[in-house]
Amino acid sequence: MALPYPILFRKSFDELAEELQKAGRSQKMKVCIVTDTHVAGMYLEDVRRALKRCCTDPEVFIFEAGEESKNLDTVRDLYRFLIESHIQRSDLLLALGGGVTGDLTGFTAATYLRGIRFVQVPTTLLSQVDSSVGGKTGVDLDSYKNMVGAFHQPVLVYMNMTVLKTLPEEQYASGMGEVIKTALIRDRELFGWIEEHTEQLLDREPSALGHVVRRCCEIKAAVVEEDPYDRGVRAVLNFGHTIGHAVEKEKNFTLLHGQCVSIGMAAACRLSRKRGLLAEEEECRIRKVLTDFDLPLSTEGLRAETVAKACLSDKKREQGKLRFILLNGIGDTCTEPSMSQEELLEGIREIMRA
Amino acid sequence: MALPYPILFRKSFDELAEELQKAGRSQKMKVCIVTDTHVAGMYLEDVRRALKRCCTDPEVFIFEAGEESKNLDTVRDLYRFLIESHIQRSDLLLALGGGVTGDLTGFTAATYLRGIRFVQVPTTLLSQVDSSVGGKTGVDLDSYKNMVGAFHQPVLVYMNMTVLKTLPEEQYASGMGEVIKTALIRDRELFGWIEEHTEQLLDREPSALGHVVRRCCEIKAAVVEEDPYDRGVRAVLNFGHTIGHAVEKEKNFTLLHGQCVSIGMAAACRLSRKRGLLAEEEECRIRKVLTDFDLPLSTEGLRAETVAKACLSDKKREQGKLRFILLNGIGDTCTEPSMSQEELLEGIREIMRA
Repeated sequence: MALPYPILFRKSFDELAEELQKAGRSQKMKVCIVTDTHVAGMYLEDVRRALKRCCTDPEVFIFEAGEESKNLDTVRDLYRFLIESHIQRSDLLLALGGGVTGDLTGFTAATYLRGIRFVQVPTTLLSQVDSSVGGKTGVDLDSYKNMVGAFHQPVLVYMNMTVLKTLPEEQYASGMGEVIKTALIRDRELFGWIEEHTEQLLDREPSALGHVVRRCCEIKAAVVEEDPYDRGVRAVLNFGHTIGHAVEKEKNFTLLHGQCVSIGMAAACRLSRKRGLLAEEEECRIRKVLTDFDLPLSTEGLRAETVAKACLSDKKREQGKLRFILLNGIGDTCTEPSMSQEELLEGIREIMRA
Repeated sequence: MALPYPILFRKSFDELAEELQKAGRSQKMKVCIVTDTHVAGMYLEDVRRALKRCCTDPEVFIFEAGEESKNLDTVRDLYRFLIESHIQRSDLLLALGGGVTGDLTGFTAATYLRGIRFVQVPTTLLSQVDSSVGGKTGVDLDSYKNMVGAFHQPVLVYMNMTVLKTLPEEQYASGMGEVIKTALIRDRELFGWIEEHTEQLLDREPSALGHVVRRCCEIKAAVVEEDPYDRGVRAVLNFGHTIGHAVEKEKNFTLLHGQCVSIGMAAACRLSRKRGLLAEEEECRIRKVLTDFDLPLSTEGLRAETVAKACLSDKKREQGKLRFILLNGIGDTCTEPSMSQEELLEGIREIMRA
């Protein structure tokens, strides 16, 4: 499908200024870069230098790195900064960083002056795959995740694939978790490609990564197009996430999102196999790929009962029923509208034991 | 034009429950009423009783009355209340009150869980005319008005015209300022109707008010349809507002919005007449109507220079040029893309002297 904005896969920031001007359609616009203390230390100067080619010197807002910053206080600080910097409706925000930066900047762009434009420059594999498509923006409120937000599309997503070289091992693995999930729900061929190119992907070769991320964005775009406001089909994107979120919560967020999703996928695959939807050989292939990318299939110190209970209190639950995404073979899903606690428990137990 | 949601003019709250159910399309939805301390004392019980006919007992969030409450702190309190009350995507917020309540509730609805539905039950003339159509929602940030917001349409606007009986004189006049403005920019016939029905309108007869407010909503809807995101044509709605806002600011918000807009319209009419666009006889008619409804044509203690200067620093100014709406006869406007400071000053001076 055609996205309403370009997603570009490049090997440097060199073309950023030019692409920004194309997307912004204005000579006079000002740009405000939003980034965190961590990414600023690594890539802010590169991006600033790249922008000098055509824009006026950008404004820069830097917030403390970490999920704890994804809240309304940071958004309010950013609003104040934008007002003081005289950022107007025709100007543009540029999110330079991972998921937190993208979500926070997108939400601010959605609500400053009732909406201004923004550009994503995602610097983690997870944010490249997960937040480039779909238009979801938002922040946390107290301990509640993503309770406050808006749907707001970027005007451009520009990825410099070489930045993934500097990503910490765990974060890279976490991003691969989302990549593998995307292949599993819709693209058997992509899954095979990942199996065949494991080495290049582990070496983080920009062109191999470009291929994989592009395909994931296409798949997500197709799903989102069917269901822009997340009322139905888009639920397939949550494959592995029901159990994953429960693990994440019960582990007090000491594991990364992608690691928890990996455990959730392992459990969902087991449940799919027990129903005769997924062949044993396919389950083995999936477990091998997850392991090859340093993703966990299980975790210690958790009771299956606790995880199953947490699943049932998940906010995506509808009127007490747990809709659950199962794998109908690699690349295909089906939905169980009302998964029983017993079946869930059994699947999780087998994984925890394995 | 057909609005995407119903706007109803009634003489009681009796049909509210039924209309809410039609608009909400769900038996199981919960309703959360948002209102301020002032309006709660007058109409909360009536509305609650009316809702009992079909909804479960609604949740109620009451905030301190006044423009000072229109900020992110109140929004955050409301988010927390919604979370604690388990308000979900399929539920509904109901704004019971004036402009502050509508703007605040609308913005919260636009951003809670990335957008839930809301209903407007406006209880002031100004909010009936001004915020029933257009989808603008928002809050102030520090001393900056409406800097944070979103476009979000209600699913229903339900007006009980009898509540206007209890509106303080000044607030009623302020609302009539917007009514007269709307007639002036697009509807010569409506202006004539107002002249002929001054007495009934001053008596606040529900059916006369219903006629006038309905027509104003239609006019605003037609303008907004041409320009949903406020990029061009919608500027005609700002007739009288450039000078009006400047007066409002220079008077430190001691005058009501509609009173300032009235002074702004008087000045804009004078500027239109000086250019030969508006006949003297028409200017006289306009000044008479404003006066009949207790609206000011001028104010003391302000220097014309100060007002003119404030106009030029108005945020709606584009690249240093002041776009200004003039009257090309009653019911018709034209836009001056670059009003000079000298001409502006002269017009304001004549009004201040008058």
